[in-house]
Order: sequence, then structure tokens, then C-alpha cells
Amino acid sequence: MFSDRFDQLVQALRILPSVGPKSAQRMALHLIMKNREGALGLAYALNEATTHIHECSICHSLTEDEVCNICASSERDEELLCVVESPADVMAIEQSGSFRGKYHVLGGHLSPLDGIGPEEIGIPALIHRLSSGQVKEVILATNATVEGQATAHYLVEATKHLPVQMTRIAQGVPQGGELEYIDSHTLSQAVHNRMRMK
Amino acid sequence: MFSDRFDQLVQALRILPSVGPKSAQRMALHLIMKNREGALGLAYALNEATTHIHECSICHSLTEDEVCNICASSERDEELLCVVESPADVMAIEQSGSFRGKYHVLGGHLSPLDGIGPEEIGIPALIHRLSSGQVKEVILATNATVEGQATAHYLVEATKHLPVQMTRIAQGVPQGGELEYIDSHTLSQAVHNRMRMK
Repeated sequence: MFSDRFDQLVQALRILPSVGPKSAQRMALHLIMKNREGALGLAYALNEATTHIHECSICHSLTEDEVCNICASSERDEELLCVVESPADVMAIEQSGSFRGKYHVLGGHLSPLDGIGPEEIGIPALIHRLSSGQVKEVILATNATVEGQATAHYLVEATKHLPVQMTRIAQGVPQGGELEYIDSHTLSQAVHNRMRMK
Repeated sequence: MFSDRFDQLVQALRILPSVGPKSAQRMALHLIMKNREGALGLAYALNEATTHIHECSICHSLTEDEVCNICASSERDEELLCVVESPADVMAIEQSGSFRGKYHVLGGHLSPLDGIGPEEIGIPALIHRLSSGQVKEVILATNATVEGQATAHYLVEATKHLPVQMTRIAQGVPQGGELEYIDSHTLSQAVHNRMRMK
């Protein structure tokens, strides 16, 4: 609209998730009109992050070093390993403050139709990691989607020969959930996995 | 969370309008995990736009050159001048395709409590521009807010001595508006400014 570089900025902003043409335009105008310093800071942060952040060589989460903070920490329980699909899941679990063990990021889930088998999500590497015997329990925290469930089931089968306990995060009614609005599959899981209170 | 540079990127993304901490985190993860090339492209576009885009010396809209496309165009009506508050308004009117004259961007509205008087929004410069006699009609397209209205009224007063027609964009029920949900001030304006149909 105003100039080629303005249009290029609008176009570039559209790579951000859930930013459509209108939002991108509004963002570009905001940056150019009201916060050029912030725009330069964002450009710098993008360059820095893109250049320096890579996969942790142990858990495949994100880090700037060879090994991430969590893998490097001596305060976390080495016997407890939480398997998740992506670094975003590590972030979500860390923010819940409910876990003090280590992680393993698969980087996806099994999806045979898309050509994603065990090798593609590094399951052989995970099994190798478990073979050392240090881990006593694996918490399968893949998503509660069809693919996430299938991946969890596959991992249980694939580790049958190892002396390691495999657990799955609980499924049921979420906090604040009203039964009336909860899908019947979740409800049937919640009834089936009911917990004794007395 | 993962590293300092990751946190800095999340922080930098928060300068974007309507991006809160959760969205910024999601954006940062998306860029680092799925679109590093896009992230570098965005950094480049931000640098380029910030360095090259500035105010048009005539209308105060945005341009990369001395004078913007619209001011430079010989195909647009020099006798019709649309006065708006910001370059975003130029964009909105251009996208509506309803105007073929030239623009003048005030860069704000009168707001005495914030110390913004006629000088701060370049009203003397606008009056000087109108004094040349080339412009026959000024369309006041400031926002329909209290400040926008006040600015429009001020401009009418301030140009009383000039032989130029001053008009105000119409106010009324927007397209698709249901009367039931429209505020009473707008409705009373719409009734008052009713148009003859037969």
C-alpha cells in the first residue's frame, strides 16, 4: 500500500500463527508509526534466536548449549522420564510445576499415512536411552489425540522387554469442566478410570 | 524457559498489538520449530521497513521516497482533499475504493488534556496548504469519536476565511447494522441526517 517495503513487512508478519492480512497490516502500522525501536529489537531477537537455538543433544528440547538446562540439572530426578511430542509440551508441563524428572521430546507422533514411523520420531534413540537402566518410570505425556494415543501404545509395546514402568497421564474431566458440555468419550474414560475417595 | 534468547524473543514479540504472553510464546515456538527461514525473513523486513519508511513531505502519510505515490500521482483529483488522523485511515479509505482525491494526515487529533493542540497535529501547515487555492473541497474524515469530532469542528472554524468547501463523512447506521443493537446517539444521528429517497 504505502511502499514495497511496507507490503513486504505485512507479508512477513503473516508467517506468525493466527495472524491474517488485517492483523498483519495493523501490526506493521503499529510498528512503523509507534514503535520503531521495538521493531528493530524484534528483528535482532529473531536473528539471535534463529542463529543460536537448536535441539538439546539428549532430550531434543530447545537450548542454546550442547545440553539443555533440564538435562544438565543435577536436582532433577534421573529415574523419571516424561515423553512428550514437542518442546511446547515441555513448556506446558514445566509451567504446571507438576514434574521434577527429565524429558524426552519425540518431535511428533506416529502417523503412517504421512510416512512418519518410529524412526522419524526417534523411538530407537529413546529405547536406547531407556536401555541404560537409569530410568525407572516413563510417563507417556503425548497428546490425548488419536495419534498421540497410538504413539503411547506403540511405546508400551516397544519397551516390553525393558524393566521400566510405563505410565500414561490421566484422562478425564478437566478442572472447571461441566459434565453437560463434555464429550461422551471423555466422560466414559472419566467413569472408567474413577478414583476411590473413601 | 528454554534459553535466554528464547525468552528475549518472546518478550520482543509482545510489542505486537494484541499479543499477550501466551500468544508470544506460541509464536516464538512456531518460528523456532517450524519456520526459521520465515523468522529471518521477518527480521530482514523489519530492519528494511524501519530504516526506509518515513513520512511523506506533502501529506504526512508513509512512503520510502520524498513524496508518496498518492501525492505524486497526476491521476488523482487535486481539488479534493481528505483529512484523516493517521496513515491507517488512508489505508482504510483507499481499500474502500471510494476516493480519488489527495490526502492530508494530521497524525492525531486535538486533545487539550494531553497537551495536543492545533500546532502538534500540524493544522497551521494544513491551512497553509489550503491557502494556495488549489483545493476546492476538504472532506473531514477524522474518527467519529469525541476527539475526532472536535478536531473536525475546529478545522471548520479555522478555515472560515478560506474559499474552500468543508464536508464531513456521513454518520449513521453501518452496513448490516441491526437497529436493535445500535447505540442511541448513532440512531438519533441517522434519523436526523435521513436522506430523501423519493
